[in-house]
Amino acid sequence: MRNTSAVYKEKNTFSLENSEVPYPEPEEVTIEVAYCGICGTDRHVFHGTMDERVGPDAVIGHEMSGVIRKVGHNVSDFKPGDHVVVRPLDWCGECPTCRRGHIHICENLNFIGVDSEGAFQKFWNVDQRILHRIPDDISLKNAALAEPLSVAAHDVRRAGMEEDDFALIIGGGPIGILIALVLRYHKRKFILSEINTSRLTMAESIGIETVNPMEENLEIAIRARNRGCLADVVFEVSASAPGAIEMSRLTRPRGKIVLVGIFGKNPEICLKDFFFKELELYGARVYERRDFEESLQLLAQKDFPFDTVISRVYDLVDIEKAFRSLDEDLSAMKILIRCSEEILE
Amino acid sequence: MRNTSAVYKEKNTFSLENSEVPYPEPEEVTIEVAYCGICGTDRHVFHGTMDERVGPDAVIGHEMSGVIRKVGHNVSDFKPGDHVVVRPLDWCGECPTCRRGHIHICENLNFIGVDSEGAFQKFWNVDQRILHRIPDDISLKNAALAEPLSVAAHDVRRAGMEEDDFALIIGGGPIGILIALVLRYHKRKFILSEINTSRLTMAESIGIETVNPMEENLEIAIRARNRGCLADVVFEVSASAPGAIEMSRLTRPRGKIVLVGIFGKNPEICLKDFFFKELELYGARVYERRDFEESLQLLAQKDFPFDTVISRVYDLVDIEKAFRSLDEDLSAMKILIRCSEEILE
Repeated sequence: MRNTSAVYKEKNTFSLENSEVPYPEPEEVTIEVAYCGICGTDRHVFHGTMDERVGPDAVIGHEMSGVIRKVGHNVSDFKPGDHVVVRPLDWCGECPTCRRGHIHICENLNFIGVDSEGAFQKFWNVDQRILHRIPDDISLKNAALAEPLSVAAHDVRRAGMEEDDFALIIGGGPIGILIALVLRYHKRKFILSEINTSRLTMAESIGIETVNPMEENLEIAIRARNRGCLADVVFEVSASAPGAIEMSRLTRPRGKIVLVGIFGKNPEICLKDFFFKELELYGARVYERRDFEESLQLLAQKDFPFDTVISRVYDLVDIEKAFRSLDEDLSAMKILIRCSEEILE
Repeated sequence: MRNTSAVYKEKNTFSLENSEVPYPEPEEVTIEVAYCGICGTDRHVFHGTMDERVGPDAVIGHEMSGVIRKVGHNVSDFKPGDHVVVRPLDWCGECPTCRRGHIHICENLNFIGVDSEGAFQKFWNVDQRILHRIPDDISLKNAALAEPLSVAAHDVRRAGMEEDDFALIIGGGPIGILIALVLRYHKRKFILSEINTSRLTMAESIGIETVNPMEENLEIAIRARNRGCLADVVFEVSASAPGAIEMSRLTRPRGKIVLVGIFGKNPEICLKDFFFKELELYGARVYERRDFEESLQLLAQKDFPFDTVISRVYDLVDIEKAFRSLDEDLSAMKILIRCSEEILE
């Protein structure tokens, strides 16, 4: 079979290249990639800021869905024609963290699609241990949201919220919005704080209650919705200096903060808040098997706002245009790349 | 009964003043104070940096032991002659945090001996609900360690350590040393990091294993003692900028950090470590009833190094000298004030 891959060449440049698809290894399957979303990490690669880690001639992409076309000879749980998504983590199984069961933060983790070959291509060989079958009632297009939604499901799981807890989400980018949708699925109360007006409009359009802290006092807004109290749980998704200060100020005593945003620079933190209120902070990274399972359940909900969350679909040939469109439009949520022209679903 | 109190007048100045002891309120007892230790907070008051909170003519002190002399008419669980220590917290019982059961971090907490009258005096009236009876096998002098030791017991409780966990204590001041002693009591493995050589010598003299990170690579020292791994639990007690950075660097994936030190200034924190290793941070402040109960059990151990932990005892009349001695000698652990000359135990 002939493959077509979008190969990252250098800053702002992909080149479409053809090759022969290798036969899958015994534990692998060959997937015909239907759709693959663009993640923030992919954008960093495209902008050239991760060249040291990714290198030239890399095929990236990891938020995908597809159809199995071939299976290696040790694969018995999957067969050609199965619709699947991939949990793009390759763990060693031997480090102390893996041995404790936290394989998703393996000390030698290979993040597939960044550290090794990804899904912005027509055919992709991956190990069977990271496949998840897509339920029949989820389209391939919608299933491409499983990976980012699993991040949000993991973040919410880390918070261990009680039924009556009220959450503040700081930051209304794609992951902040997906956290809101996971919280809504779990019938949890929350508010989303964001300063960009087009993001605010988008969030409100799908029924997410928002606050713009530049225009409204966030503390008052929270107390008004939580029986006079500060937030029980705060999700810090903004990776901004104000977010890093506000996260502890706006959490109630013994409340929990889930750290979702990746801070490139060490921010100043009010540790005094953590001390006086006995706050708890939980780092949250990627996802576990059960988070994928939950996000696939969630994507089977008829009222999920797919039309808003999936902002647009581009063909593989237009991948550069797709990446550039995200630079130009902050309100865009998920842009998908259709990687195979033959899958029309 | 005539009272003698050390009254804080202004920076570096106490004055001994006499007054009549008021009859205890129905829920109160009158305690003849045997010993009262000097806490870091007391030293801040003495240095004049807390004048706004404490005000002039305040009687401070909260690390005490004593003998009940009178009981109010609603007091039935205690009687004159009982040896007691006081858990110096006065909570409202009505705020959301109290209603959740976290009375020690009450949103309207009155820290007795700072926010209201304390124990650097011969007689002291306190509410019966914060009394703990001293077991017979603990002397009044040793019992004066119950309060700071309860802080350490609370810190260790917050860590929820597993049997095999290895802890790093950053900072070898009085609380760092007491955390080490609580960990030893629980048979937990740990190492204490400190840069002051006289503190290091003192810690080693009572069998605490130490590292001086100015002379030895702390990461290597930890891995050598923890089967190649970083620390499972880190206690940040130094309230220093390097401590704030090292605490996340030296914790293993999914490890826990207990925040003990009070940071006057917001330090820079490597939130990236928290994200990538899914670290957990727990603020830890003062103590709960059960922490006092545990620390009294601990003080009944014959091998507790009382002679080292109690550096010296001064009479109430020499209270200024006692405070000044702590400024001059960083290796001093606990200095006690003997508040009643009539208690000779």
